[in-house]
Amino acid sequence: MFFAGDNWAGAAPEIVEAVAREAARFGNAYGDSPIDREVEAHFSEIFERDVAVFLVGTGSAANALALAGVNRPGGVVFCHRESHIVEDECGGVEFLTGGARLIGLDGPVGKLVPVALSAAISRYAPGFVHSGQPMAVSITQMTEAGGIYSPAEIQDVSRAAKERDLPLHMDGARFANALVHLGVSPAEMTWKAGVDILSFGGTKNGCIGAEALVFFDPQRATDAPYLRKRAGQLFSKSRFIAAQFAAYFHDGLWLELARHSNGMADRLRAGLAAAPHAREAWPTHGNEVFAVLRRADAERLRRAGAFFHDWAEPRSAELGLAADEVLVRLVAAFATRPQDVDAFLRELGA
Amino acid sequence: MFFAGDNWAGAAPEIVEAVAREAARFGNAYGDSPIDREVEAHFSEIFERDVAVFLVGTGSAANALALAGVNRPGGVVFCHRESHIVEDECGGVEFLTGGARLIGLDGPVGKLVPVALSAAISRYAPGFVHSGQPMAVSITQMTEAGGIYSPAEIQDVSRAAKERDLPLHMDGARFANALVHLGVSPAEMTWKAGVDILSFGGTKNGCIGAEALVFFDPQRATDAPYLRKRAGQLFSKSRFIAAQFAAYFHDGLWLELARHSNGMADRLRAGLAAAPHAREAWPTHGNEVFAVLRRADAERLRRAGAFFHDWAEPRSAELGLAADEVLVRLVAAFATRPQDVDAFLRELGA
Amino acid sequence: MFFAGDNWAGAAPEIVEAVAREAARFGNAYGDSPIDREVEAHFSEIFERDVAVFLVGTGSAANALALAGVNRPGGVVFCHRESHIVEDECGGVEFLTGGARLIGLDGPVGKLVPVALSAAISRYAPGFVHSGQPMAVSITQMTEAGGIYSPAEIQDVSRAAKERDLPLHMDGARFANALVHLGVSPAEMTWKAGVDILSFGGTKNGCIGAEALVFFDPQRATDAPYLRKRAGQLFSKSRFIAAQFAAYFHDGLWLELARHSNGMADRLRAGLAAAPHAREAWPTHGNEVFAVLRRADAERLRRAGAFFHDWAEPRSAELGLAADEVLVRLVAAFATRPQDVDAFLRELGA
Amino acid sequence: MFFAGDNWAGAAPEIVEAVAREAARFGNAYGDSPIDREVEAHFSEIFERDVAVFLVGTGSAANALALAGVNRPGGVVFCHRESHIVEDECGGVEFLTGGARLIGLDGPVGKLVPVALSAAISRYAPGFVHSGQPMAVSITQMTEAGGIYSPAEIQDVSRAAKERDLPLHMDGARFANALVHLGVSPAEMTWKAGVDILSFGGTKNGCIGAEALVFFDPQRATDAPYLRKRAGQLFSKSRFIAAQFAAYFHDGLWLELARHSNGMADRLRAGLAAAPHAREAWPTHGNEVFAVLRRADAERLRRAGAFFHDWAEPRSAELGLAADEVLVRLVAAFATRPQDVDAFLRELGA
Repeated sequence: MFFAGDNWAGAAPEIVEAVAREAARFGNAYGDSPIDREVEAHFSEIFERDVAVFLVGTGSAANALALAGVNRPGGVVFCHRESHIVEDECGGVEFLTGGARLIGLDGPVGKLVPVALSAAISRYAPGFVHSGQPMAVSITQMTEAGGIYSPAEIQDVSRAAKERDLPLHMDGARFANALVHLGVSPAEMTWKAGVDILSFGGTKNGCIGAEALVFFDPQRATDAPYLRKRAGQLFSKSRFIAAQFAAYFHDGLWLELARHSNGMADRLRAGLAAAPHAREAWPTHGNEVFAVLRRADAERLRRAGAFFHDWAEPRSAELGLAADEVLVRLVAAFATRPQDVDAFLRELGA
Repeated sequence: MFFAGDNWAGAAPEIVEAVAREAARFGNAYGDSPIDREVEAHFSEIFERDVAVFLVGTGSAANALALAGVNRPGGVVFCHRESHIVEDECGGVEFLTGGARLIGLDGPVGKLVPVALSAAISRYAPGFVHSGQPMAVSITQMTEAGGIYSPAEIQDVSRAAKERDLPLHMDGARFANALVHLGVSPAEMTWKAGVDILSFGGTKNGCIGAEALVFFDPQRATDAPYLRKRAGQLFSKSRFIAAQFAAYFHDGLWLELARHSNGMADRLRAGLAAAPHAREAWPTHGNEVFAVLRRADAERLRRAGAFFHDWAEPRSAELGLAADEVLVRLVAAFATRPQDVDAFLRELGA
Repeated sequence: MFFAGDNWAGAAPEIVEAVAREAARFGNAYGDSPIDREVEAHFSEIFERDVAVFLVGTGSAANALALAGVNRPGGVVFCHRESHIVEDECGGVEFLTGGARLIGLDGPVGKLVPVALSAAISRYAPGFVHSGQPMAVSITQMTEAGGIYSPAEIQDVSRAAKERDLPLHMDGARFANALVHLGVSPAEMTWKAGVDILSFGGTKNGCIGAEALVFFDPQRATDAPYLRKRAGQLFSKSRFIAAQFAAYFHDGLWLELARHSNGMADRLRAGLAAAPHAREAWPTHGNEVFAVLRRADAERLRRAGAFFHDWAEPRSAELGLAADEVLVRLVAAFATRPQDVDAFLRELGA
Repeated sequence: MFFAGDNWAGAAPEIVEAVAREAARFGNAYGDSPIDREVEAHFSEIFERDVAVFLVGTGSAANALALAGVNRPGGVVFCHRESHIVEDECGGVEFLTGGARLIGLDGPVGKLVPVALSAAISRYAPGFVHSGQPMAVSITQMTEAGGIYSPAEIQDVSRAAKERDLPLHMDGARFANALVHLGVSPAEMTWKAGVDILSFGGTKNGCIGAEALVFFDPQRATDAPYLRKRAGQLFSKSRFIAAQFAAYFHDGLWLELARHSNGMADRLRAGLAAAPHAREAWPTHGNEVFAVLRRADAERLRRAGAFFHDWAEPRSAELGLAADEVLVRLVAAFATRPQDVDAFLRELGA
């Protein structure tokens, strides 16, 4: 009963097999092998336009390099205050940008509110050197709180960014989960809605470790090869990342894996709705569920072998938790089995 | 006939199997799984003392984080001018240290000369703020030019470093190749000879992508977890790196792989010695061979499917190359087969 | 009628004379002249203990270097959200620390609230690598909003910092104004109350450009000389900064200048209290006054030659401004004359 | 007898008077005062084209910000190995660029040799990510070793830089000394000869502390205001730097001061030529003289009150110094008096 994170899951067999096939042969190092090229081309196909793609090892690296690639001195990034770049990367953006600043904004379920974003940006008067200069807006799709932007919502955020010519970055650590939920195309969820740079995540959705930095305007990517290299993110055996993505995209595996995760989360949601002493803390989509449980239930579940994290502030005050209740996060992964969900719900008394 | 680099080889089957096993189960993310802990303990066993270990994705990252971990403002690193950190990492050390400086020294086959090192360090008068302050010495074992330091030679370099209390870093991208050549223990080749920090490489010797940053004095590693994390080098599925190392160390696989590579290089050396129109450019050990070939031979070999790199300066002038000769680097890997070496030599006319 | 900033004032005649005297002779460059040494000794006298002093050119530099001197990877600084390092230095701290993060907290008149500070720090669990690590607390004395911490209040902030072994930094751009208001000793307002590092400002209080970075524990200042130098803040003719401070401290000039500024601000406050259509926005001490004026009055004053800045959020909502009112900041300086204050008040209709 | 450095001199009376005048009045802070604007305009006049000017406090800051303003990831600067940015700024360029690398080249009297420069640049193949990317060439005029580039020589260096589209930076700490020696216009010595960015020094030539960063193409200066601000180099009382420059330029004071310094150095050179046991180490122009003295003479001079520095390697080996000889640097300043030169020479036995 592993619900602690989609990063706790292993890797899909198809991914492992692709790695094994690649392991058995020689190939060019440092991203110059045929499979590296193929995968780059595949990204362009998937996104229906020529994109510049840079394979990297972690989502944190993708995020920090994305923003480093568009940074300017005194650069300020506008993002959600619960976003991964704010809460979970130990200042990676600040580090790899040489000292950019993140302005964390509020908004429901981890989503930026365009009008609040505009207001925050407008506090930085153009040319007023003392406060720094806005350099990017960053959103997460799906968000850390289980929210999913519709393409129209992304467009609205993009519009607020574009008023000041700011590029829009999307942290797509759970890109596939959002995509299959929305039922739109990758292009519709990104550049057609105004996204300029994407951290495209494969790791959380069944890869061993495969992330890609995607620039929808390759012109913007001139410095990216150097940034990636000097950040220690150009893998000598880069083709093992490429092989993962090749398998990931083959026959729509990535969408299938995400559909499965989302489905398992739906099963959890349904069970929670039926449970007498538990409830969803707020409505979510995709593969993350936030639940209010009785503390005793949470403890019993853990003793029974369930893994999941307590979820700390900031939202908890608004949820009206009773003294004996806790807020927890339950994440379904590609490897989550229906019987594990059912066992969890059974143990919960649902 | 792949002799372009040990990074061109795939991965050993035992490594792939370990990854496949890990793929089939859930486990803690971000380096907290049982196999992460086991591998950390294994490092301490191998080195015969308690070490602090940090798994990372690339050797460049290990090198840069090693030096970032001991940097001070105005920090200066003394290293060989042909070293990987100088020539091949796009300024990764400068980037992740926030602007340290590398002083590249000369020396035969990529090895530092202790007396020259002392002289270089002594140019920095203690407390003289204008020129910066020495912060580390870095050596490569085996070197980029196929040289291998004996433990006594490492000790001599260490002594020069310790005169000014400088930590000694070893870039061990080809650690195993040097180790089996010398026939000493990992402890003898490192901390017993004065090495303080080690970039321990697995990738070039049969791993998919597995590198470790090792501090022989764990006290020195206080900041390393934060540095690794904010550099985007803490892998969420870190246990896949751990699994590689577990297999790598199991039953001495790592030594066996290195012995094989070195043996294949020896086979090449023997063939070159017997060849009428080719020769070793300078004596090497381990799995790298530098050869002087007739240009026509090199071209014919490439047409016949051999992969190898021309090797540029700085040594070429001293080698007395004829106008129709070229200097090339030939690297044997764990996956190099005797028949490939023989085919290469046959094609060369040896 | 210059009330736009204490930085708009020129320099005290005694300061200029000291510079002129120094101009007429030769002296050691780069901080090694006798007057540099004397001034360093004078700082130790003033603070009643051996301090390490580094003269620099700007307050922003002093602040950023102070925090860079104690930074650690993933470092987080807790400060007021209206503080100069947050609002007015274009990310100087982030830049010179190589990417530290500022957490801006709320609190009345620019002052940190110890309990809120403790709560903010406690969000960073020791050893939890994902969110970074607290590295310092920074306060401003007097604050940007005209607040002045009593020594006891500083002690309370310090206690919250020390619970997690965080050094306490004080941005003392208006150190003298706070000091003479409180009537305490420099030691009582700093290290005796728990301050570890001080940006000691002279520029706003009658110097041409003289700032000092003061470490109350010289052990902590080992790296500071290198940081200052490489940040371009070691002045070759450093003795001109030293000469300013020598005159500044001579016969208590610095206290006299600050008393004058504070007195001029008091005169303003008294006038505002008596004015029918103007009021102090909130109670302040020292040389800054925040006033609510009728927009028409503000415009008329400016036409009459008065200089002052509108003061933007965040406090304005709480002030109950009428639609025809504006919030402005009025700063008195060492060179402000009573007749200018009176002329201003007269023009205001007070 | 002060010959230790032009930074040991005080400041010209006209400069001090200008500061005193400015001290007596109020004026806009942070570079927005009328005199700031006037001085900016004056720079454009002097250079006969519209330039972007940024006043800063030190030459090190000007140099580092100049190069930071044109840096790219993995950026490499080509400069002389004896240049100030290499030898004397504690890695300031590396710091403020976030980790650029300086490649120090050899050449007579501190001057770059165009063919060697081209060769060094050509080692960096375009698009080859491993070694980084050339980003600028930096020269010093006059050099640290007393050399002066003719405009034609600057043009040759510029041509080598422009082959790879690299901007040419000039460290003009002793700009005026070179200018009056050459008898050309500021435009001829800079942008007409291919210089793109200039660190224009006033401090060494009679100012208290006045340096300017000049971009001959203002388009290139978009980021400079933010870089200057966040590096702590935007002075709140910037108008005191402006006032120095106003006086410096007034009636050609700057040229007169430099002519005086150069003349004093000429007087020294003449004396050395006539001295039986001393000689110029190599031919120089401008205000620096390098002399070979008998050690006993040097010691006697110091006892008699002369200040000058021994000059360390790297050139000393080539000079054929006898065992009892030393190499020293003698620098004349605006305040050097003929009688001091004569006393020095007399003491030397010339």
